[in-house]
Amino acid sequence: MRVAVPKEIVAGERRVALVPETVVQLGKAGLRVSVQAGAGEGAYVPDSAYGDAGAAIVDDAARLLAEADIVVKVQKPVRNERLAQHEVDLLREGSALVSFLQPLNDLELVRLLARRRITSFSMEMVPRTTRAQRMDALSSQATVAGYKAAVLAADSLAKFLPMLTTAAGTIRPGRVLVLGAGVAGLQAIATARRLGALVEAFDVRPAVKEEVQSLGASFIEMPIAEETQTAGGYAKELSAETHRREIDVIREHAREADAIITTAAIPGARAPILIPEDTVKLMRPGAIIVDLAADTGGNCELTRPDQETVCHGVRIVGAANLPATLPVPASQMYSRNIASVLLHLVKDGKLNVDFQDEITSGMCVTHAGEVVHERIKARMAS
Amino acid sequence: MRVAVPKEIVAGERRVALVPETVVQLGKAGLRVSVQAGAGEGAYVPDSAYGDAGAAIVDDAARLLAEADIVVKVQKPVRNERLAQHEVDLLREGSALVSFLQPLNDLELVRLLARRRITSFSMEMVPRTTRAQRMDALSSQATVAGYKAAVLAADSLAKFLPMLTTAAGTIRPGRVLVLGAGVAGLQAIATARRLGALVEAFDVRPAVKEEVQSLGASFIEMPIAEETQTAGGYAKELSAETHRREIDVIREHAREADAIITTAAIPGARAPILIPEDTVKLMRPGAIIVDLAADTGGNCELTRPDQETVCHGVRIVGAANLPATLPVPASQMYSRNIASVLLHLVKDGKLNVDFQDEITSGMCVTHAGEVVHERIKARMAS
Repeated sequence: MRVAVPKEIVAGERRVALVPETVVQLGKAGLRVSVQAGAGEGAYVPDSAYGDAGAAIVDDAARLLAEADIVVKVQKPVRNERLAQHEVDLLREGSALVSFLQPLNDLELVRLLARRRITSFSMEMVPRTTRAQRMDALSSQATVAGYKAAVLAADSLAKFLPMLTTAAGTIRPGRVLVLGAGVAGLQAIATARRLGALVEAFDVRPAVKEEVQSLGASFIEMPIAEETQTAGGYAKELSAETHRREIDVIREHAREADAIITTAAIPGARAPILIPEDTVKLMRPGAIIVDLAADTGGNCELTRPDQETVCHGVRIVGAANLPATLPVPASQMYSRNIASVLLHLVKDGKLNVDFQDEITSGMCVTHAGEVVHERIKARMAS
Repeated sequence: MRVAVPKEIVAGERRVALVPETVVQLGKAGLRVSVQAGAGEGAYVPDSAYGDAGAAIVDDAARLLAEADIVVKVQKPVRNERLAQHEVDLLREGSALVSFLQPLNDLELVRLLARRRITSFSMEMVPRTTRAQRMDALSSQATVAGYKAAVLAADSLAKFLPMLTTAAGTIRPGRVLVLGAGVAGLQAIATARRLGALVEAFDVRPAVKEEVQSLGASFIEMPIAEETQTAGGYAKELSAETHRREIDVIREHAREADAIITTAAIPGARAPILIPEDTVKLMRPGAIIVDLAADTGGNCELTRPDQETVCHGVRIVGAANLPATLPVPASQMYSRNIASVLLHLVKDGKLNVDFQDEITSGMCVTHAGEVVHERIKARMAS
């Protein structure tokens, strides 16, 4: 089996799907890895390091992809405007692709993959089971995003996060409010706590309370009658009434916050608005909102993806693709996720597409010219 | 006594010399404070907050300064290019000025202050005694700079600072090297340690070893025969031979570092070059140098003040005036320093210039038309 690692072409993407350490591991398992020249540049991995790990370096993306049995990527394949060519068109018919694919948001790509008879696996679709934990790239990348959000907030604030006691007196600690205590939210809490901030966290799922408190943050209580999480543990869309109540609760805590880090996402749907403009108006001048949901519309009404704006004296950071700003650990972790997926999919030197296996069937989007994933088929039919 | 707080006019200066909390304190001691409208803007202090604290708000800088007995500032007075006017020319003859003045580096300003018969006190010249500790603005602002340097390094790095253990394996902690373990260096160490980095520190003064170690950093040993610190506890200029040796020692540690924070300054002199270009060449691609000595020439040979450059794959941040990037705590602490100086200088409602007092004589630069500070007089004569 030949595994190919092309250079990412989306602007600002500095991660790479495999790092040398993992190339060695895959090599031991009998997988030969080819890497496009310069693929590791953004993550400070020189071609020579891939060479030392046993990978072949290929200059030309077209040749690399044409010869591959499995292509591994970070960003979903896109049209290369410069070459007027879609990455999917460079893949060999019948070959496999393992990558983030955003299949629920990009049905056009799904159709293209089916048409080109690519066996595609979506890293977003890894089931949230103990067995699949090592493949869970949403979690690994959310860890990176949560850490970065807190560091970014610290660096943008006009205040200290820690309480400092000096000869010139005591300076009070900064107050950080984290919305959503999933993987990203918990890592943001942990990082803000490391820096000494007073941290409050809000989540509609009461189950996360203990974890929040164990990190030294206080948990904002809001009794909710309805079910707030899916079987997979993700947050569910709430009723309009409950949503109004949560906005009110958040508003009261937002006005005291120096930094708000928002991480509330609903898979495959627009992110819920938790901070409408009237909340922003009540916030402290100089406060900052780091909106990790910027990619899917933002948790703040005023967020603009990939942009930093100042509204009503509050700086709002539309933090799209934060993992790419920490390409070294983000690539390391993603690479380990990808390697676990590959080792799961490849049996006796061949791709083994076993639809009886819940990980394989959970992740597989297209196969043998068909869209095979039930949720995506349902979305296409609707 | 009327104390005036003008709006700072140096570009990028967001601090203010007094905050409302301190205005109240001075009011109780019988000092009336006037504040220029908008003076607190950069530090998010509205005019109304000064009004509530009992200060008069004055729109016009010229009127404010003309009516003042003591003017307090952050940045040394400069020529206002827009108004084609020097701030010193707005001061009333015979009035007092308490501010950072950089008198050893700006003899022209010293002459101007003497000519205008201003009684001027330099915040850089506060003696390093226990009694004067509360007035020590170099220390308070160095605390801010040290914290910010570490946060800035964390935010600019392509890596985590903490070690993280996740389902996708363990990520090693980042390595931070701090050069100079004065107030700024110690705060940078403490902040990088909070974030979980592996920290090494270098200082020519063996006396700081224990403090470095108590913060969880390792101290780089280099036996030195000569005296390395002044009576005041500051680092001294070293012999050429010792300087060459320290550069060699630093080079060996620099090549392993992800971030270097340099804080080595010699009062009144150019900062020593600790990181020549050949050291930068050996550093890891993607590493960062935050050079706190940028204002006085930089500890890295390639530093450009106020600029961020990338040389040999290393990002070099010429971090001039970092305290201004955290205007809230920096102003709070500076304000307390200034208030302590004012309460020291004012006796029974009058400025008491007592040259027998070591704090007063240590800080006083000009008085009654003369340059009165011995070190500055010596510098002028040379």
